Amino acid sequence: MFSSIIGTFVFNDKFSVIDKGKNEQKLLKKHKKAQRQLRKEQKRRILQYFKNKDYFKLFIEKNKQITQDKLIKSITEENLIIQTINNIEEIEKCTNMLCKRLREWFSLYLPELDQKIEKHESFVEFILRKNKSDILKQLKIKKQDCLGADLDKKHVNEMKFLSGEISNLFKLKKKHETYLDELMKSYMPNTQAVAGTMIGSRLLAHAGTLLRFVEFPSSTVQLLGAEKALFRHLKTGASCPKHGLIVSHELVAKAKNKGKMARILADKISIGARVDYFKGDFIGDKLRKKLEKLKV
Amino acid sequence: MFSSIIGTFVFNDKFSVIDKGKNEQKLLKKHKKAQRQLRKEQKRRILQYFKNKDYFKLFIEKNKQITQDKLIKSITEENLIIQTINNIEEIEKCTNMLCKRLREWFSLYLPELDQKIEKHESFVEFILRKNKSDILKQLKIKKQDCLGADLDKKHVNEMKFLSGEISNLFKLKKKHETYLDELMKSYMPNTQAVAGTMIGSRLLAHAGTLLRFVEFPSSTVQLLGAEKALFRHLKTGASCPKHGLIVSHELVAKAKNKGKMARILADKISIGARVDYFKGDFIGDKLRKKLEKLKV
Repeated sequence: MFSSIIGTFVFNDKFSVIDKGKNEQKLLKKHKKAQRQLRKEQKRRILQYFKNKDYFKLFIEKNKQITQDKLIKSITEENLIIQTINNIEEIEKCTNMLCKRLREWFSLYLPELDQKIEKHESFVEFILRKNKSDILKQLKIKKQDCLGADLDKKHVNEMKFLSGEISNLFKLKKKHETYLDELMKSYMPNTQAVAGTMIGSRLLAHAGTLLRFVEFPSSTVQLLGAEKALFRHLKTGASCPKHGLIVSHELVAKAKNKGKMARILADKISIGARVDYFKGDFIGDKLRKKLEKLKV
Repeated sequence: MFSSIIGTFVFNDKFSVIDKGKNEQKLLKKHKKAQRQLRKEQKRRILQYFKNKDYFKLFIEKNKQITQDKLIKSITEENLIIQTINNIEEIEKCTNMLCKRLREWFSLYLPELDQKIEKHESFVEFILRKNKSDILKQLKIKKQDCLGADLDKKHVNEMKFLSGEISNLFKLKKKHETYLDELMKSYMPNTQAVAGTMIGSRLLAHAGTLLRFVEFPSSTVQLLGAEKALFRHLKTGASCPKHGLIVSHELVAKAKNKGKMARILADKISIGARVDYFKGDFIGDKLRKKLEKLKV
């Protein structure tokens, strides 16, 4: 008896096939005497039988099928999370770039708005919703004091088109963030509860896969994203970085001793991620509460 | 008699004002004896008169007004052209970045599309307009051969949202290009006719102002945008660059001797820009025809 990916074959003493099928157990019951452990010589003879071209085709197809299945199964929610968080970061880069351009451009027309409004989103909304005199009124600037040129409507319209697109990009970013929230809730709820959606998914994207992330010691988690500073420390003896990506976490930002907080937070994130990997119960809220009680 | 930005004043021998007004010519007619050329001592006495605080305020306001007028007048179509071309280039950067992400993301679902369709714009339209089975049918791929995962609709929708936004950005870019075309036609028609809208405005953006661009010798125009290679040439003796931004011009691309063509093209662009600067007649078509006749 000989099994391979295309099925199980039963040979007689003269090495010709007397029975074949897909279910090894069934064939084993039918041919009780069949040997499953073959000697080298026997194997050689049997393999010769498969040199038939018909079997080649079968082998190739079966192999393709298996690879395909493995490929498809390898695509999990973790890939989706990584794509989404990367996409969110790239949209951010785009909006920043385009907003900077819009500010420069619009300043030809109404330079006062750029200085008064710092937040990109409100700046864009202002341009979209209001005309020049409304904006001047709201900013309490007299029309004759405005230092911008009086441009034709067709010129201003181009700026409005751009603002509209930027505003849409902001909306898209928000949509993606809600979606990412849901993904994280279903795939790694504990990590999400401790680290937050954005930091959690950024850490995952940095590690590449959840398995790899889970295998990291918590000290690695603490410094993920600070590789440059770490290697500078190792090479030149500069001071060691205390935190990587997790520096933007609210608890670290609030803490007096940021290094200590980062260490403890990384520790809890590690625990959370491991529970997530092994599909354990939800303990994220407990971990989070412990962290919030700490006074560091 | 003494004129300054706040008006003209007529003084008597004892340096007190006997008349004042805004129109110098009128006052001159009224006070025929008035001296316009003052001696140093006279000037000193007169200036002392203006040390009054009331005049200070007037001076400040008048000064502000003048600066403001100059500022406003300094905003011309050339600023709009530069902003628009820079914006177009930045939108291009954004769409490239987002398309790369979309391709990676969508490949989890349908990896075959990425390889088959090279053009970003068609790729985005495919995702927007068709569902998986339609795309597979069009690419002539059997459903069981597809190497992508079967994702839920909610996951695919996020990718569609992104495609929609990218498609909008492409549309915005086209709008801006039409607008830029019109701007160039009215502001520098000769340069546009010779160099084309995109290259012409890029050259202008590189120079900063039309005046500065006009002052460049044509050899500088030829190498605008190749500064890095030029300085490498000057520093290390590497070979001198033959063309900068204008390398993407169709005539240069077509020519066998690209260096020679670039030199002649830069020459004509220079001529065109100078005619544009001095608001001369339209000779762009003649210049262009001369270039097209050349066999280089």
